[in-house]
Amino acid sequence: MTAQAIGYIDSGIGGITVAREALRQLPHEVVYYVGDTARMPYGPRPKEEVLKYTWELVDFLVKKDIKMLVIACNTATAAALPDLRAKLDIPVIGVIAPGVRGAFRATHNKKIGVIATAGTVKSQAYANALRHKDNSVSVSQLACPEFVEIVEANQSDSVTSKQVIADKLTYFADKDIDTLVLGCTHFPLLDTTITNVMGEKVTLVNSGAVAIENVSAMLDELNISNTNPIDRSKDEYYTTGDVAKFHTLASRWLQNDNLNVRHLTITTTGLKLED
Amino acid sequence: MTAQAIGYIDSGIGGITVAREALRQLPHEVVYYVGDTARMPYGPRPKEEVLKYTWELVDFLVKKDIKMLVIACNTATAAALPDLRAKLDIPVIGVIAPGVRGAFRATHNKKIGVIATAGTVKSQAYANALRHKDNSVSVSQLACPEFVEIVEANQSDSVTSKQVIADKLTYFADKDIDTLVLGCTHFPLLDTTITNVMGEKVTLVNSGAVAIENVSAMLDELNISNTNPIDRSKDEYYTTGDVAKFHTLASRWLQNDNLNVRHLTITTTGLKLED
Repeated sequence: MTAQAIGYIDSGIGGITVAREALRQLPHEVVYYVGDTARMPYGPRPKEEVLKYTWELVDFLVKKDIKMLVIACNTATAAALPDLRAKLDIPVIGVIAPGVRGAFRATHNKKIGVIATAGTVKSQAYANALRHKDNSVSVSQLACPEFVEIVEANQSDSVTSKQVIADKLTYFADKDIDTLVLGCTHFPLLDTTITNVMGEKVTLVNSGAVAIENVSAMLDELNISNTNPIDRSKDEYYTTGDVAKFHTLASRWLQNDNLNVRHLTITTTGLKLED
Repeated sequence: MTAQAIGYIDSGIGGITVAREALRQLPHEVVYYVGDTARMPYGPRPKEEVLKYTWELVDFLVKKDIKMLVIACNTATAAALPDLRAKLDIPVIGVIAPGVRGAFRATHNKKIGVIATAGTVKSQAYANALRHKDNSVSVSQLACPEFVEIVEANQSDSVTSKQVIADKLTYFADKDIDTLVLGCTHFPLLDTTITNVMGEKVTLVNSGAVAIENVSAMLDELNISNTNPIDRSKDEYYTTGDVAKFHTLASRWLQNDNLNVRHLTITTTGLKLED
């Protein structure tokens, strides 16, 4: 079992930031990644639809015999985690609970900001989980769907994008937060701009990075770590959208031009690999 | 079960840094702490002796119906974690695996330093666990038993102590590490001095802080978090050594003068509470 891959699913390409953390923190573990780029963003979709799409991604990976599943997408975590946990017999790690734990490790004044998609904010998943662990915490949430579009359009470094981000984050100007949870896996790709806007005194929490610590802990507990070094050519990436575009963005973010990216077709009986 | 306390054990008072993280990150959880100050330090003792003493601390807490056990001591974790996990029916969290995970989250150049007691270094627990997750990692270990004595003697801020720490850490001068694991729970109390010596480019990993993230994850997974705020007067602290000295140090470190500290007598049939 130790040599089996760990599966990652996302609504698109944002979850690559979580895979990037996995490659860095767990270099002995094989990565299988599925991004539903054709149907992204999940943020504005009804919960039932997100749940259905998420299961399609998961079903594809489960057939490939993964040993653990990471929902590398906050929207899908909020919509589907309990259902996936109840029905799968492998461990399932989301990104929201790790983001919450990372926030408590970082904060000292207990004033925490959360930026996320509209769906994640509406679900109140972060706010509820934060208050569950500490009812004295002050939580300020802001939906930033524009940030997802900026990343997916590969416009992270444009002047216009930086202005959009700066304008949006003025919401936090009077909130006195010392910690900002990046509650969408796309957002670590904007961390330099966000840090410049928020200032050095605000700690950014990359929930994907904490999620990978959580995966690492689970591998330890279940004693299913792969102890042998692996060839990264074993990693497999899949997208329901444009392969070339996915390859361009993922290669850049993972600093690896030799990614093995293949297309999945959405059918009425699930996702199918092209011949 | 959710209202039950989480138990913390340590060879002395260093584990208070782990309790401090628990109070900060998990303010709804009751703390029971036992420090074996009369027999500290554990670092130089044979493994069998550390195992025996650790079980005496654990037996006392298990009778008090704790819901989870944290071994807030690296030496005891190295000596006793597998045995405790095998024989107890509550979750047991050590500090070594979390320290390792925290190191991988922090490092970018994969050159990691570890400072610990002689016993922890000799056990190779950190070096083995680091290489288990990434065999390309470079690990430099240094036993710093003097640091424990400095903390227990409440001499953290003296000029002499600072010089001892600076001299000792010259060992890392040519190691090019970007991450230093504080592999003993006393050492976060010296973090300002250690940061001054090592420089801002070296990230210190407080393994106790990561361990509490791990406790938080386990509470989530088992659904045994206490969701109600608690009165801190429910916390209980025990020492086998001098109560007044323990009270002085722990009160200072936890910034709480109203700690409930009681003495435990070491007997041939285990630790007994004074009448």
